[in-house]
Amino acid sequence: MNVVNLKKLLQRIQAGRVSVEKGLEELKHLPYEQIDCATIDHHRHLRQGAPETIFGAGKTAAQVLSIMKKMKEKGNNILVTRLEREKVPPLRRAFPKARYYPSSRVLTLINHPVEMRGRGTILVVCAGTSDIPVAEEAILTARMLGNRVEHLYDVGVAGIHRLMSQRERLMAASVLIVIAGMEGALPSVVAGLVNRPVIAVPTSVGYGSHFGGITALLAMLNSCASGVTVVNIDNGYGAAFAASQINRL
Amino acid sequence: MNVVNLKKLLQRIQAGRVSVEKGLEELKHLPYEQIDCATIDHHRHLRQGAPETIFGAGKTAAQVLSIMKKMKEKGNNILVTRLEREKVPPLRRAFPKARYYPSSRVLTLINHPVEMRGRGTILVVCAGTSDIPVAEEAILTARMLGNRVEHLYDVGVAGIHRLMSQRERLMAASVLIVIAGMEGALPSVVAGLVNRPVIAVPTSVGYGSHFGGITALLAMLNSCASGVTVVNIDNGYGAAFAASQINRL
Amino acid sequence: MNVVNLKKLLQRIQAGRVSVEKGLEELKHLPYEQIDCATIDHHRHLRQGAPETIFGAGKTAAQVLSIMKKMKEKGNNILVTRLEREKVPPLRRAFPKARYYPSSRVLTLINHPVEMRGRGTILVVCAGTSDIPVAEEAILTARMLGNRVEHLYDVGVAGIHRLMSQRERLMAASVLIVIAGMEGALPSVVAGLVNRPVIAVPTSVGYGSHFGGITALLAMLNSCASGVTVVNIDNGYGAAFAASQINRL
Amino acid sequence: MNVVNLKKLLQRIQAGRVSVEKGLEELKHLPYEQIDCATIDHHRHLRQGAPETIFGAGKTAAQVLSIMKKMKEKGNNILVTRLEREKVPPLRRAFPKARYYPSSRVLTLINHPVEMRGRGTILVVCAGTSDIPVAEEAILTARMLGNRVEHLYDVGVAGIHRLMSQRERLMAASVLIVIAGMEGALPSVVAGLVNRPVIAVPTSVGYGSHFGGITALLAMLNSCASGVTVVNIDNGYGAAFAASQINRL
Amino acid sequence: MNVVNLKKLLQRIQAGRVSVEKGLEELKHLPYEQIDCATIDHHRHLRQGAPETIFGAGKTAAQVLSIMKKMKEKGNNILVTRLEREKVPPLRRAFPKARYYPSSRVLTLINHPVEMRGRGTILVVCAGTSDIPVAEEAILTARMLGNRVEHLYDVGVAGIHRLMSQRERLMAASVLIVIAGMEGALPSVVAGLVNRPVIAVPTSVGYGSHFGGITALLAMLNSCASGVTVVNIDNGYGAAFAASQINRL
Amino acid sequence: MNVVNLKKLLQRIQAGRVSVEKGLEELKHLPYEQIDCATIDHHRHLRQGAPETIFGAGKTAAQVLSIMKKMKEKGNNILVTRLEREKVPPLRRAFPKARYYPSSRVLTLINHPVEMRGRGTILVVCAGTSDIPVAEEAILTARMLGNRVEHLYDVGVAGIHRLMSQRERLMAASVLIVIAGMEGALPSVVAGLVNRPVIAVPTSVGYGSHFGGITALLAMLNSCASGVTVVNIDNGYGAAFAASQINRL
Amino acid sequence: MNVVNLKKLLQRIQAGRVSVEKGLEELKHLPYEQIDCATIDHHRHLRQGAPETIFGAGKTAAQVLSIMKKMKEKGNNILVTRLEREKVPPLRRAFPKARYYPSSRVLTLINHPVEMRGRGTILVVCAGTSDIPVAEEAILTARMLGNRVEHLYDVGVAGIHRLMSQRERLMAASVLIVIAGMEGALPSVVAGLVNRPVIAVPTSVGYGSHFGGITALLAMLNSCASGVTVVNIDNGYGAAFAASQINRL
Amino acid sequence: MNVVNLKKLLQRIQAGRVSVEKGLEELKHLPYEQIDCATIDHHRHLRQGAPETIFGAGKTAAQVLSIMKKMKEKGNNILVTRLEREKVPPLRRAFPKARYYPSSRVLTLINHPVEMRGRGTILVVCAGTSDIPVAEEAILTARMLGNRVEHLYDVGVAGIHRLMSQRERLMAASVLIVIAGMEGALPSVVAGLVNRPVIAVPTSVGYGSHFGGITALLAMLNSCASGVTVVNIDNGYGAAFAASQINRL
Repeated sequence: MNVVNLKKLLQRIQAGRVSVEKGLEELKHLPYEQIDCATIDHHRHLRQGAPETIFGAGKTAAQVLSIMKKMKEKGNNILVTRLEREKVPPLRRAFPKARYYPSSRVLTLINHPVEMRGRGTILVVCAGTSDIPVAEEAILTARMLGNRVEHLYDVGVAGIHRLMSQRERLMAASVLIVIAGMEGALPSVVAGLVNRPVIAVPTSVGYGSHFGGITALLAMLNSCASGVTVVNIDNGYGAAFAASQINRL
Repeated sequence: MNVVNLKKLLQRIQAGRVSVEKGLEELKHLPYEQIDCATIDHHRHLRQGAPETIFGAGKTAAQVLSIMKKMKEKGNNILVTRLEREKVPPLRRAFPKARYYPSSRVLTLINHPVEMRGRGTILVVCAGTSDIPVAEEAILTARMLGNRVEHLYDVGVAGIHRLMSQRERLMAASVLIVIAGMEGALPSVVAGLVNRPVIAVPTSVGYGSHFGGITALLAMLNSCASGVTVVNIDNGYGAAFAASQINRL
Repeated sequence: MNVVNLKKLLQRIQAGRVSVEKGLEELKHLPYEQIDCATIDHHRHLRQGAPETIFGAGKTAAQVLSIMKKMKEKGNNILVTRLEREKVPPLRRAFPKARYYPSSRVLTLINHPVEMRGRGTILVVCAGTSDIPVAEEAILTARMLGNRVEHLYDVGVAGIHRLMSQRERLMAASVLIVIAGMEGALPSVVAGLVNRPVIAVPTSVGYGSHFGGITALLAMLNSCASGVTVVNIDNGYGAAFAASQINRL
Repeated sequence: MNVVNLKKLLQRIQAGRVSVEKGLEELKHLPYEQIDCATIDHHRHLRQGAPETIFGAGKTAAQVLSIMKKMKEKGNNILVTRLEREKVPPLRRAFPKARYYPSSRVLTLINHPVEMRGRGTILVVCAGTSDIPVAEEAILTARMLGNRVEHLYDVGVAGIHRLMSQRERLMAASVLIVIAGMEGALPSVVAGLVNRPVIAVPTSVGYGSHFGGITALLAMLNSCASGVTVVNIDNGYGAAFAASQINRL
Repeated sequence: MNVVNLKKLLQRIQAGRVSVEKGLEELKHLPYEQIDCATIDHHRHLRQGAPETIFGAGKTAAQVLSIMKKMKEKGNNILVTRLEREKVPPLRRAFPKARYYPSSRVLTLINHPVEMRGRGTILVVCAGTSDIPVAEEAILTARMLGNRVEHLYDVGVAGIHRLMSQRERLMAASVLIVIAGMEGALPSVVAGLVNRPVIAVPTSVGYGSHFGGITALLAMLNSCASGVTVVNIDNGYGAAFAASQINRL
Repeated sequence: MNVVNLKKLLQRIQAGRVSVEKGLEELKHLPYEQIDCATIDHHRHLRQGAPETIFGAGKTAAQVLSIMKKMKEKGNNILVTRLEREKVPPLRRAFPKARYYPSSRVLTLINHPVEMRGRGTILVVCAGTSDIPVAEEAILTARMLGNRVEHLYDVGVAGIHRLMSQRERLMAASVLIVIAGMEGALPSVVAGLVNRPVIAVPTSVGYGSHFGGITALLAMLNSCASGVTVVNIDNGYGAAFAASQINRL
Repeated sequence: MNVVNLKKLLQRIQAGRVSVEKGLEELKHLPYEQIDCATIDHHRHLRQGAPETIFGAGKTAAQVLSIMKKMKEKGNNILVTRLEREKVPPLRRAFPKARYYPSSRVLTLINHPVEMRGRGTILVVCAGTSDIPVAEEAILTARMLGNRVEHLYDVGVAGIHRLMSQRERLMAASVLIVIAGMEGALPSVVAGLVNRPVIAVPTSVGYGSHFGGITALLAMLNSCASGVTVVNIDNGYGAAFAASQINRL
Repeated sequence: MNVVNLKKLLQRIQAGRVSVEKGLEELKHLPYEQIDCATIDHHRHLRQGAPETIFGAGKTAAQVLSIMKKMKEKGNNILVTRLEREKVPPLRRAFPKARYYPSSRVLTLINHPVEMRGRGTILVVCAGTSDIPVAEEAILTARMLGNRVEHLYDVGVAGIHRLMSQRERLMAASVLIVIAGMEGALPSVVAGLVNRPVIAVPTSVGYGSHFGGITALLAMLNSCASGVTVVNIDNGYGAAFAASQINRL
């Protein structure tokens, strides 16, 4: 659109209907963001088939609903994260096709089939059953972003053979998202077994000196295995987003 | 080799020279690691042309020297990180071709040309001139791992136009390593401008409530931009290792 | 009044009705606070048209009501901050003209028009929609203190062009209050764009290693942009009060 | 300049020497930063007579020298902060007019008289004699920025009458920089006595549970007096910069 | 009793009914604790007229009731601290004379008049109205321990003249308990005005970087005024107990 | 079983029904975990008579129920820890023999008598009555693991003679679990009195600067008495598990 | 003096040489601090025979020397704390009678015999030999302040009988200063044995998770024994000052 | 000795040379610790062949020398931990048989052969070569305490097969001391492989967010493997002492 406007201005200059001086003036005051949009392209990932995403925490059902309605007009798929269960009914009334995952508090609305864009498989590994909600958020996000996703649950380091017996699946993945609470040791062990990027997600699963996930976070940041990068506590969405970017390279 | 041994055992069983019972016993006690090595392949990244790496901090010059000598025999390239300047002279006497970078405290020994293995370009971006030593560690590591590396220095967020004017270079990279001390805001801004994986490296550059890099680390973990993953404070090596894994996908 | 008393004492000394010794004694014991009040003037800002302010957190509705009634007698405008919604009904019954803002939990009672006293415009900028309650507290406070206030919402650093396109509004302000949660980077970017005082307000918007606002607070204290000063987490009131003092110079 | 180029482009379009399509293409690729520079004006404060500033910590004498030489060419006054004493001699050899203040580790080079630009007086208040180095950094910075500066030393809250006896000087200032280590209580008391902006600077003066200034910093952020804003620990420079911006309004 | 037993043993040795060797053996095994009880006298303060005290937090109403009943038999006065309001009704049914103070969550049961044992006056000073519950716990405790107690409320440091005007009352006290939240500065100022022991009590009154009282606690531990000692956050009881011990010397 | 399979393979090789090459191939792909199970024996402690354990926190009643049903089939005793009271009724309906301990939130299901396996006595010592729930978790766990367990309650260090009078019981134990909140000093005193392993359990009993148990945890880690080892806050289960392992040596 | 001036003013008013109005004016502007000094008496403790005190840390030898010279003129005894050994020689040259205690880094200069002013005995108790420097600072300070001081060393809680055997000395003291590093448990045990005020001093003796004294500090603040108050880490001076105030009551 | 004195007293009572009353009096005042020594037996572990131990940190060479001389008289073996290298020469001059281990800073003096008292083997496992000094302290201590000790070095979790291949040695040990810095994950993995007590020792090996060992400490406290207990950072001595107590059961 703004390219259209710009073109019109130049045409009017060419046609002599607008003087150079006035054109210069308009160009100088041409809203920055409009030139900008043409190059920065803030919405670039939407055009690539990615879903629109709403961070549901701290928003009322009414706010989420109104944002979803606006998004729906554009026909995009929609992903809502951290959506408390009590906010779901009004959304489901408005969007009967919406699907809610209570464990991970994710809501998805698939308006058109997700285009597969990732090259390899993203493997989501988690240490304990209590970490599964975070894993689910990562899986749903990665799928909405067009990736093939597999998972491996309950392979914590205290029973290392469970993990070892799955080495082939670990090595077959392109990118791994490794999720753990408690002492957060799983990403170190996994990264020592594979030769692929490992994104570590600490979870708030623990108590006492676990400090709501800080212990797992610190352990992951201090991993003795090379190639581990880390996201914030319980941030399954962020890990999946990064993994998806990697998987598209 | 261990496959060879295993084969011999089976042949002796087949030939009746070893009983099934004795063979069973040997198999049960067959050193775990030997079967293991065939599949896990601990040295996998070495075979791929990666350098051997020594973490120099806390090792004496004599220890580093002895490790380097052993590595040298295999003919690999060698990368030593966090090597204090006073430990360098004896190493240089033993390895005249070694090159030391005092700012990043990295020593490299190139025994054979590094094979280019990365597909795209890794761009190392840093906020201030004081972050350059960490950037240099990342650059040297990424190059030793077979990547094309470029850099962009001194583009901190307090003078945002410096960064904005380099948008094209930002967008041309496959993976970005973004390094910042102080408030650690640069990865958020960069990740908002590009559509590629951003690995954030907090540095210990700061004072007072900076807590030796903790403030920058926390800021990066809490980035409002999707797709940012984080490594430990001043860990240029780790960021480059992860970026290299991504760049090979 | 105390000046009156003091004058009377001196007159009685002059008239010989009080001896020098006794006068000396009285002066030595003259209640400190009375001389004091004449010079310190604790109520100075009230005389300047500022509203009376009540910090509502931790006070019962009854306590707030009784304080408001006493204040009302003096005819001042009244500002109540951090007032939970359930305390509002009894206040509204007593003061039908009171207006409550549920998002920011502010209640205002305008008894006489606020006198405009600020010289320029205070611009309240905030990073995300979740930061708006803090912004609203700042805006309402600054208005009650007699300032012209404008705002700019949802210009977080992950989409830097949104901020850049508003540069003219940023540069037109006399004082800026910049509010952000998450990584708290916005004040650094804004302070790099303007040449005016920037008061940064960290918010508790975030999760995990955000520590209820500490990450944003630390980031702001470590801003690489000169001229940023900081107030406590979620302290929109304090920022507005400081901005108002600056705007009156 | 870029306006000139832009004008030329439009003239060539008007003259038909450049087609609309090609003009459109050029405009889309018109380097962002060049339009940008005309409006953002990164060097704005230099043109206003401010000194060029170098943060000396972590830079070698050679680095500081080379930066100073480049700055000197433009004829600006130069301020170097946090410069260790051992780096001074080579700088003094190159710039004999440079003056070094060992207590605050500040070096100044006055190439032309500082133009007075502040409207009122900035008063620097500090609690104990150990806080004086930070005060000195603030004073030297504020003077270099064109402000009239006064100071009040050793008026800590444990001997409150020392402070009370200086109330008139406190009330005469336009902006106050209040510096304290230990329990950091001074800004609260001062802000309760004056009606002007108070910028609080915590110092690292203390021991044990003082945590290198964190206790004073926290106390100041939690001041019960309205209108106090805070900068990082020992950041006399930052406080003076902010105070100077306020004093120019 | 055990002295009696011991005497009997010696008499039997003297009488030759027990050999030296056997006596030696018995003495070696003489239960430690029995000699002990005679001298340590765990219940010493009860004999001195002090109330029996129950820390109510984390105890059920039934548990508190059963402890009170046992105590009641000995006829002592009883003090229950941190008793949630919902636990009071059953206690009041059992002890109609019990009196409950909802603000401080203290319950007292006066079975006999408290004997005045303190020599001077304990003055309880607090900074803000929100600190009053802690002050009330201190006052009730100190009274139950036999002290004359006075109080001074709402004399925070941001309005220093309120405190200054009460200097005579401050100087008349034997021991001072000074209570403050926020930046916790009041004990420093008070200790600078008086020449008596000051016990500082930080409160959890504050928000954000106040960390539930830690900021006030740290400030008090780092007081620049000599003679300030500190107790745990909100520990009005502990401060009163210590003050009472001092007041009895 | 897998030994059986392995044997069969070798027999078929011996018999010439499987070639050496094919046997080699099978052995290389022989599922890792199956050899593994024979040696690692993940379920080793179950076979030794230990109960199956479920960490109830964060699991729904339905999840616990389904896990218990599966365990029940194997006939093992079952121990559920950290089970909130509201989840108990459905479990009790399904397992009428289950017994719930509300104070420690432990549920036990005894399907066959616990076999006594410990050699000595485990003594559980706790400082205050508020620490009893953690003590109870330790006691129930240790008993389920086949140990003789005794306890000693309310022997905190502020009334040291209570502890001293029980020295003989302290010295009679094989292993001691010492539980304390507040300042966490009890393990130091106990470890100074006995010559046996002391496992210290910090509890979250405390307030203010107790940080939910961190103070007690830190104190125990810094014990001046040799031989103290520490588990996480409130981790009665973990202490009992470790004590049981020690008691079986 | 100022009383003299005030008297003169009143006499001149009485004599009619100064009008009431002018007198009023002078009184209003009468320097606050001068009336103040008459009542606040900042130097009150000096007149009571206390030494002048200099906090030596962070002061140069020259600064300490110049302060001591000024103090010397008034004839007071002088106490310098935290004085590094290398600063002592010039002080000793100037004041040959000065005595330096290298372990506690205290320097004393006795110009006239210390007047005994304390009523009872202050007992300084410390846990380990490494805590002795802090104990020595406390002892020297308390003696300079006119108290009878005794000490009890190396009675840490891991060998509780050492402490128990000294119970009589503990109970004979008026005030106790109890010093400990590591887990900081000693004050709790001592306060349970005596009925006197206990001032606890945490020391920085420890390592790892001791955090330079924080663990001991937290333990003391959370003491389960009533009547313990706490000062900053290693603050022997502060403890002695408070103990001395108590001992004079 | 004191038994001798006690016997004499009883003999004099028996002989009628001392009356019962006077004997009673003497017994009541008989120094507590002397009866005490007979029962508490502070030196119990020395009699069991344990070495005398000196914590060398913070002691001068002269102090260590004087303590060693006193110990030497009793003929015990002596263990000095944390002894800086520069303090060794004078000790070696006095005790030529002393042996110093520079890496672990341990000095041993073997005066008589260490009696083997442990029942099984203590296995010391460590993750990286930088953890070896802590391992060495543990090994030397455990040997001096009469245990058979083996070790396993450089089996960090990032190369899990190194550890797995040593499973038999792990399972053969009676007690395991597992030492790790960085993310501190090794104890979890080891405890999942063995059925014996695991004592975890975090080390200060790491950087940035490792906080001098805190990250490893927290990870170990939050281990998902049952049966792990933890000691302070770098506390090889404490782990060995506890392991030795366990090994003697």
